[in-house]
Formats: sequence, C-alpha cells, structure tokens
Amino acid sequence: MNKHVEKLMKNSIAFVGSVEGDKPYVKAMGVSWREGENIFYFDSNNGSKRVAQWKKNPNACVYFYGKPLFRGVMLSGKMEIINDIELKKAHWNPMKKMVYKPGVEDPDYCILKFTAEKGRYYFMYESEDFKF
Amino acid sequence: MNKHVEKLMKNSIAFVGSVEGDKPYVKAMGVSWREGENIFYFDSNNGSKRVAQWKKNPNACVYFYGKPLFRGVMLSGKMEIINDIELKKAHWNPMKKMVYKPGVEDPDYCILKFTAEKGRYYFMYESEDFKF
Repeated sequence: MNKHVEKLMKNSIAFVGSVEGDKPYVKAMGVSWREGENIFYFDSNNGSKRVAQWKKNPNACVYFYGKPLFRGVMLSGKMEIINDIELKKAHWNPMKKMVYKPGVEDPDYCILKFTAEKGRYYFMYESEDFKF
Repeated sequence: MNKHVEKLMKNSIAFVGSVEGDKPYVKAMGVSWREGENIFYFDSNNGSKRVAQWKKNPNACVYFYGKPLFRGVMLSGKMEIINDIELKKAHWNPMKKMVYKPGVEDPDYCILKFTAEKGRYYFMYESEDFKF
C-alpha cells in the first residue's frame, strides 16, 4: 500500500456511503477508533436512518479526502452494527456524554464496525486499485 | 432554506455518491459550475467507472461538508451525462487542457449535470429535511 493511502486512512473525518432502494447516501462521520489497517469504528445511533440502511444492506464505502491536489481513497466493504456493552465501555469517554446523554448505557448508542475488503486510490485524474 | 445550507452548497468540493450492484461509491469532485440553486455541473470522462454507473442508474447524491462543528448537507437527485459540444465550449477554459489533453473536442470529456430534488442538512447530531 502506498504511503499516501496510509496517510489518508489516518484522517479523522470519513465520508461514509450506504444504499437504500437503489439510491446512494453519503455522510461525514468521525472515525472513533481503528483496528489493524482495514477496520474502522464509528459511533452512531440505533434509531438513525443509516443504521436502518445497513441493517438491510451491509454494503458500505468509506472515502478519505486529502489535499493538496485532489487526493482520495475509497474503501469498499461491509458495515456491522454492534451493541456489545463491554466494547462500548472499553471505548467510552466523557466527551461522548454530549451526544449520548444517558451515558454508555444509552439504548440509542451503537457502534458501527466497517471492514474494508479493497480500495481505490485517486490522485488527480489517475486511480489505482488495491486489496487488503 | 437556511443560510448554512446556502453557504455549504457554495463549496468547490463535493462528495458525490453513486450505486452499482447494491454497493455505494463515493468520490470527491470539483463543482465546475452551477445553475439556479439545485443544479450542479461536474467535468468527467465518458470512459470512467462513475459515468458507467450513472448510465445504468442515474440516482446520485452530492454531499457538501463544512466546519466548524460537523456541518453537512446531502442532496439527493439524478445525474445526467451530457456530451453537447456547445455546452462544453461555453464552459471550457485553458486549465482543462491539463485533464483533457486533446482539448474541448476530447471524446472522453463529458459533463455531468446533477439535479437535486431534496436535501438533508446535518448539524452536529441534528438533521433537517428540505425540498427544492
């Protein structure tokens, strides 16, 4: 994997894609933590539109964008919805109370686990595929 | 439409979504020009993966991201592929020769026209739907 891809994948903000019907959806999400080189965790809500979409269709993509000169990487893979309380507690921090007001036990709080299978790196008007 | 949405939609970089199979795809693209409040044009390539996807399924989304504090707007609509030479000439500029080396007549050069039907505005952990 080239060093630009490694750097892009460290971005804190990801543009995350889902499908509902045959329509695409994109949203910016903050990466909560990482595991290895191809697993990314996000905090989300059991009651959200995106979680409902991934329950029906786990296909997802995660795009990281970087300057200068229009650099990006799109990862393709699957999204899992996790409600394991031990995992939630292990990655909890007091800042999260701003979002999940009842705390780590908030029934609306869920963890999204994205596992990338492959990627495509974009630089200017060139692109290059890679696998994990 | 609120003033934050208006401001976000002026961003030069958009994160554009498409669907192939039942998988989502996202890519950063520069907005080439605009028409009214809900039409956005992009330069692309007839031979690209994305153009092939929108030929089969014109559903598209365009996401604009803004700081501070996690602000974004996702527009949903349709993508058209345009190869009208008069429109290409009307919006041509010499910088585009860096990408389309043969010039405005490059057969690979195409224009993408995105027409938004509705949108969803995100601010922190709140969201709000709107229509055009």
